[in-house]
Amino acid sequence: MATPRPTEAPPGGPLPVALDAMGGDHAPGEIVAGARQAAEDHGIPVVLVGRPEELGDTGGLDVLAATEVVTMDDDPGSSVRRKKDSSLVRAAEAVRDGRASAMVSAGNTGAAMASALLRMGRLKGVIRPAIATPIPQLGSHPAVLLDAGANAECTPAMLVQFAQMGAAYVRARYDVGRPRVALLSIGEEPSKGTPLVKETHALLGGLDGVTFVGNVEGRDLLALPADVVVTDGFTGNVALKTLEGSLRFFMDTMLAVFGADDEAKAAAEVILPRLAPLAAQFDPDETGGAMLLGVDGVCVISHGSSRARAVVSALRVAHDLAGAGLVGSLGRAVAPA
Amino acid sequence: MATPRPTEAPPGGPLPVALDAMGGDHAPGEIVAGARQAAEDHGIPVVLVGRPEELGDTGGLDVLAATEVVTMDDDPGSSVRRKKDSSLVRAAEAVRDGRASAMVSAGNTGAAMASALLRMGRLKGVIRPAIATPIPQLGSHPAVLLDAGANAECTPAMLVQFAQMGAAYVRARYDVGRPRVALLSIGEEPSKGTPLVKETHALLGGLDGVTFVGNVEGRDLLALPADVVVTDGFTGNVALKTLEGSLRFFMDTMLAVFGADDEAKAAAEVILPRLAPLAAQFDPDETGGAMLLGVDGVCVISHGSSRARAVVSALRVAHDLAGAGLVGSLGRAVAPA
Repeated sequence: MATPRPTEAPPGGPLPVALDAMGGDHAPGEIVAGARQAAEDHGIPVVLVGRPEELGDTGGLDVLAATEVVTMDDDPGSSVRRKKDSSLVRAAEAVRDGRASAMVSAGNTGAAMASALLRMGRLKGVIRPAIATPIPQLGSHPAVLLDAGANAECTPAMLVQFAQMGAAYVRARYDVGRPRVALLSIGEEPSKGTPLVKETHALLGGLDGVTFVGNVEGRDLLALPADVVVTDGFTGNVALKTLEGSLRFFMDTMLAVFGADDEAKAAAEVILPRLAPLAAQFDPDETGGAMLLGVDGVCVISHGSSRARAVVSALRVAHDLAGAGLVGSLGRAVAPA
Repeated sequence: MATPRPTEAPPGGPLPVALDAMGGDHAPGEIVAGARQAAEDHGIPVVLVGRPEELGDTGGLDVLAATEVVTMDDDPGSSVRRKKDSSLVRAAEAVRDGRASAMVSAGNTGAAMASALLRMGRLKGVIRPAIATPIPQLGSHPAVLLDAGANAECTPAMLVQFAQMGAAYVRARYDVGRPRVALLSIGEEPSKGTPLVKETHALLGGLDGVTFVGNVEGRDLLALPADVVVTDGFTGNVALKTLEGSLRFFMDTMLAVFGADDEAKAAAEVILPRLAPLAAQFDPDETGGAMLLGVDGVCVISHGSSRARAVVSALRVAHDLAGAGLVGSLGRAVAPA
């Protein structure tokens, strides 16, 4: 871009967050409901992007019309090229053109990535953008794992940038002074793992502004000695989905036992309130979704199953981080010293 | 080997299983206790391998003396070369020399693998042995994931052999007629994943004697549409440890809530019996440990934390599969048609 974008409180108040109103399993109803809550309860400016006639009562929110919709089944790359008037593409363009501070979508993850990358462009110096996903940690802010799936194949230089971007992100989002960075491997020793992991291990030791705590394993993910966990997008995606699947399995199993009979139901009434604080910390609706780091704009990607509450979280995170100048911080983090 | 080994009921009764009495967090006490139980309660012949003076009351079991011990901290490769009179190496030699039907160890996994590989040798035609680990499945026999960590780097040809060996293993162990094989990836589509995964996907479709069900994701691991899941040893190790860590986290959390106060304790007395059948299915002591497939002998590797009950399971699995001619089945499975 030739001119800097007015993403931080321009004349006339802060820019709105561009929300893909058509993306997600519960779009547009729950998406619009979330937007209204975010605006009404938290004062977050939002522009809804989508088919105006399908949005219902928008509560007076601005609407950016887009006639097309990228579905969950659409191929990410080609859908962005074919559906130029889709809500996803238009949301990304609004950020590019300085009409929105950030974009948020609960739609097709691959297409959201592609839209952001193709319309906003890569941040200068970034080899490849990565998806950063929060992992809940008891008694602390979440840790962030990246790459959660944007790049199945990675190089050591990419993983080093993921560490730099992840560190800048947790600094901005969780106010961590000197982020601790870990590398996901199959043993604590630097000699363990693939050549990619071993080479990255050697490079991370020399990284400025962070504390490299060494390798962590899959079993450490819910009790990490780190704020940032770095891995390639294939391993990261498998690990996160394994975590998600096992927690869901356990929840479902407990709920089935709790509802098995009257005696169990009575016992559950005692147990459930004591589980509530934990459940809240593991509620994906509270964490605000994943973020695509390394594109020239703030892009939050929510779970496809997002309902209004998750949309509110995502909008808050997007608004806060745009306001905090995340993109500038990321750019400085990857710039050679 | 020039001469076939008498692994199936030779004159004088079945061969004993060689048990590394010195390996594991609770060795030798719990290991010897498990051996005695297996012999007394299940009629499984066992030879204890280790330092005779440290084994305590062996209940009359045979002992094969070995003066050295490979510790958990020893480097796998060099420890096998340096500690030639270790219990691990001697156990592997007993199988090689036809004096034992199988080996079992709860010690250093890498050293157990190295001992088996260096002393028994690879099965003819096998590119690289792999660790097959059971994953519990509700209402069914466990599925088996391989490679669980023997080979951080793999080729498509190796993964195809893992599928063949995994299929032979579940046929022998769980009596599955036509095993269903899945490939671990980051999306169901054949186009998803690394080049390794995409090339393997194409090859698995043409595999004889199995049903290839396509890709599965991390979130599917506890409810698999397959008997065998194939992946490289890096991804497999991360996924299994993530599963293990999240289940342990959940168990610990529930137990803390159940013990929080008197009211919770009373409720837990109602809930816990209803959870027992589930807990039994997820009890690693019941699954009998991981198996190294592709060496010329049966090698079961138990958890380092194994107590007597886990040792009994491992000995039963080792004895049963040696008796069922697993090694011959594996050899036929990988042989070109």
